[in-house]
Amino acid sequence: MIKLYDVDLSGNCHKVRLLLSMLGLEHETVAVDLFGGEHKRPAFLGLNPMGQVPVLTDGDLTLRDSQAILVYLGRRYGGDTWLPGDAADVARIAQWLSTAANELQNGPGAARLGVAFDLPADVPAAQEVAAAVLAVMDGHLDGRDWLELDRPTVADLACYPYVALAPEGEVSLEPYPRVQAWVRRVEALPGYVPMPGLPREG
Amino acid sequence: MIKLYDVDLSGNCHKVRLLLSMLGLEHETVAVDLFGGEHKRPAFLGLNPMGQVPVLTDGDLTLRDSQAILVYLGRRYGGDTWLPGDAADVARIAQWLSTAANELQNGPGAARLGVAFDLPADVPAAQEVAAAVLAVMDGHLDGRDWLELDRPTVADLACYPYVALAPEGEVSLEPYPRVQAWVRRVEALPGYVPMPGLPREG
Repeated sequence: MIKLYDVDLSGNCHKVRLLLSMLGLEHETVAVDLFGGEHKRPAFLGLNPMGQVPVLTDGDLTLRDSQAILVYLGRRYGGDTWLPGDAADVARIAQWLSTAANELQNGPGAARLGVAFDLPADVPAAQEVAAAVLAVMDGHLDGRDWLELDRPTVADLACYPYVALAPEGEVSLEPYPRVQAWVRRVEALPGYVPMPGLPREG
Repeated sequence: MIKLYDVDLSGNCHKVRLLLSMLGLEHETVAVDLFGGEHKRPAFLGLNPMGQVPVLTDGDLTLRDSQAILVYLGRRYGGDTWLPGDAADVARIAQWLSTAANELQNGPGAARLGVAFDLPADVPAAQEVAAAVLAVMDGHLDGRDWLELDRPTVADLACYPYVALAPEGEVSLEPYPRVQAWVRRVEALPGYVPMPGLPREG
């Protein structure tokens, strides 16, 4: 049985919830008490020494990192639909997995932590990172409906939550109309599930 | 012909140089004048709108992001050696690609930019990120020679440069003996090539 260690307000967990739902995979959800510090206590650190959610287990396999979990679920249960095996295709997608892990996490993701959750974060620096990456995404989406391969892939799911949640970090999506249209496209996918704050009115 | 847009002092470029060498792939290297700002001018931004090195082209394919380039070269030219196709295996490796893209880039990578190149960086914050991720890596390497799959993979190459270069950002590797041993193991791989500052004396 697949088990997801989950925090409902986490965009990184939301990526995984989306793919689990879109693939129609039965799973158990274990709520992690992030605000109570459960993720920094020994039991959880045994699952993920980084002390971060999500964590996914499937039989003997334990995975940390939302991108890696998307890679696993997409390859293991999605055939070539969500993550193809071709070298060039998987590399095109991997570009956005890095963007999700770095610029989107440390841009709109960090701005949201500072503004909406009052956690320690250099909000102006994060907002600057956010603006730069959103401008690149908006340009990239000129003439494209999806980030790569002309169809939804794990690249889109990896990037979606912290882009869509950007306004919670006082990062407006108004300057990025193609990004806004792409956000709505993700939210219209079969199997899409909401999270607190998403989808928001455009 | 494979073409690498390269900066010799860049750890992200070094990852790619390592795999090109270890795979014995002929390629052309194009030096990018980072200190002259070439990566922020239109010609280069046409290759990578993020304005970052490395970029790799192979025929019609243009890839940004060092992790994505390792994924491509490993799958395209390395069989199952450097990046296997099995879902669980590729996901185990993907965990470390995210770590390389985020914590290692923004930890020891950013500390080095601030200390060694006097570029804008919050050095104490970067050193703190570095210490946290190096402690996790050191624990993970207890009983392991390589990050995943009991053999060298793109996970090791993705993580190696900014770990090995950490002392240039005044991040000591002395508290992490297993990390130091792993660094030396990477440097002993057939096809290893040095870069300015690497390998350093232990």
